[in-house]
Amino acid sequence: MERNVENEKTLRDIGEAGVLSRLRDLLRAAPCTAKDSAVLVGPGDDAAVIHPAPGADHDLVLTSDPVIEGVHFEPGTQPAAVGHKAVGRVLSDIAAMGADPAFALVDLVAPPHCPVSKIESLFTAATRLAASFNLAIVGGDMASGPALELHIFGVGRLPHGTAVCRHTATAGEALFVTGTLGGSRREKHLAFAPRVREGAWLRGRASAMIDLSDGLATDARHLADASGVGIRLSGETLPVSEAARHMPGKGTPLEHALYDGEDFELLFTLPSNQAPALEETWQHVFPDCRLNRIGITTNTRGRLEYENADGRVHTIEKHAFSHWTPKS
Amino acid sequence: MERNVENEKTLRDIGEAGVLSRLRDLLRAAPCTAKDSAVLVGPGDDAAVIHPAPGADHDLVLTSDPVIEGVHFEPGTQPAAVGHKAVGRVLSDIAAMGADPAFALVDLVAPPHCPVSKIESLFTAATRLAASFNLAIVGGDMASGPALELHIFGVGRLPHGTAVCRHTATAGEALFVTGTLGGSRREKHLAFAPRVREGAWLRGRASAMIDLSDGLATDARHLADASGVGIRLSGETLPVSEAARHMPGKGTPLEHALYDGEDFELLFTLPSNQAPALEETWQHVFPDCRLNRIGITTNTRGRLEYENADGRVHTIEKHAFSHWTPKS
Repeated sequence: MERNVENEKTLRDIGEAGVLSRLRDLLRAAPCTAKDSAVLVGPGDDAAVIHPAPGADHDLVLTSDPVIEGVHFEPGTQPAAVGHKAVGRVLSDIAAMGADPAFALVDLVAPPHCPVSKIESLFTAATRLAASFNLAIVGGDMASGPALELHIFGVGRLPHGTAVCRHTATAGEALFVTGTLGGSRREKHLAFAPRVREGAWLRGRASAMIDLSDGLATDARHLADASGVGIRLSGETLPVSEAARHMPGKGTPLEHALYDGEDFELLFTLPSNQAPALEETWQHVFPDCRLNRIGITTNTRGRLEYENADGRVHTIEKHAFSHWTPKS
Repeated sequence: MERNVENEKTLRDIGEAGVLSRLRDLLRAAPCTAKDSAVLVGPGDDAAVIHPAPGADHDLVLTSDPVIEGVHFEPGTQPAAVGHKAVGRVLSDIAAMGADPAFALVDLVAPPHCPVSKIESLFTAATRLAASFNLAIVGGDMASGPALELHIFGVGRLPHGTAVCRHTATAGEALFVTGTLGGSRREKHLAFAPRVREGAWLRGRASAMIDLSDGLATDARHLADASGVGIRLSGETLPVSEAARHMPGKGTPLEHALYDGEDFELLFTLPSNQAPALEETWQHVFPDCRLNRIGITTNTRGRLEYENADGRVHTIEKHAFSHWTPKS
């Protein structure tokens, strides 16, 4: 099949980042000029930010997340966990923009032999999590398909001009993360509590924010690259989870905290002089949500580093989950 | 596998309507009370209608549509046609509410061996159709999965309180349909022009509206059931398409016009005394879009009838495509 290899590049050949890059070019090449002024943040952040009408006092954030059997969860997974994860991912994206959840649509795909009870359990859990964060499921669609899938479309709301983006960090700021990191696939990736209240509270406080879906190392790089800064993590301060300490295989707990995906915690920056006050207040507002100051932003654009307890600095390599992983 | 048959009802057993009914009950049982006042139209219409913020002078319509290989298009279909259809379905839903297209997100699912060029062609066509109707694609997500799928989430906008719903027809109104009907799967289902301008123009004019995705007979029933009226179609006036006249198999052209899905035309009602003026104006505003007055609404709730040229009236039976078609 020489022809296929030479002439027909596949998604596997260029990987998720390659696909994303090409599609963004396509979107840019066919702009929708009449809407330019209404699109405050386009593709590339946790959610798009739009100004819904001239003069409106609020903005909306729009995000979508797929949850697919065999990709985002194993075939034997409890359906309630699938429903929870699907809504949780959307809530985490809304939180990462500093917005309040508002509305959602659900696209369901399932094969004909799927038990009705499975779909009911899934929707019950999805609806429960949504309602607990004031996210109203207002519609959607359904179709027969080869595997069980949920595609959830979420709308969040926040005062005009207050969305917290990933491209707005500056050098010399403090870097914080909520919760603990690593080992999510033991349990947390199906049962996490999205940081919705924390994210909305950080609106007007954090200078930049992102949710951790691809792993700390990768998402810190996303934030750094978008902002045109570097990041130096302080090894001793990383909140390594219990699960990360008990993962099978050869990775160290620290490696799991750095590289495991689906923590669904919030990573954010803040001017350093505001950091002590924020830490103090946080303890009172969110006594049950751990907050760790884990590093600083630097002016070495694109460099992601890691400082050991002994003061030695190491470069953190790219190493992340990617849909359609590239060959090389 | 006696157990499965007896105890575990599958989606195939209860069909799409059965699944929809159960999920709507679940959504109702776990309401999101804080949002009730903002949700003007929930599940059950072509799109949800929400009031995005207190005092806002506009409403938003939210809709989502899946397009799945092997379900909504055959595996060999040109990727550009797939992209066109996916965006077209969302535009048709927005049009059916009388709204103006505004924003969209695209979830892409594809297997690793999918050629990059296929995805590029698909996105180029999707972006072109979207831009031509001022629909800005502002984000989305992508994932590896078993088949090629697009899930498009669309947001439309219209002045507060002006959405055209399917539950607001009254008895004795005139019934209109755009374009011609039947035989869509020959070509039109992949290449249709969504009636976006027509739908927005009908805002403030039509009393109720729906787009034809499941076939005239089925969608007319949806409109009639939602409005609590009956419908009598006038056989001679049905705009049977050329494609419907050349379909293989034993169905008559009229049967194809009544029952074939995916026409993506607009079906709407209007007080009878306003019908002549609308027909007159329509010819000037939309000289290229055929409009036919095809019947009336009646006060016989739930009855869908068909009047022959000789004046005889027949009842139209239920007969439609359904995902997870029920057994019996």
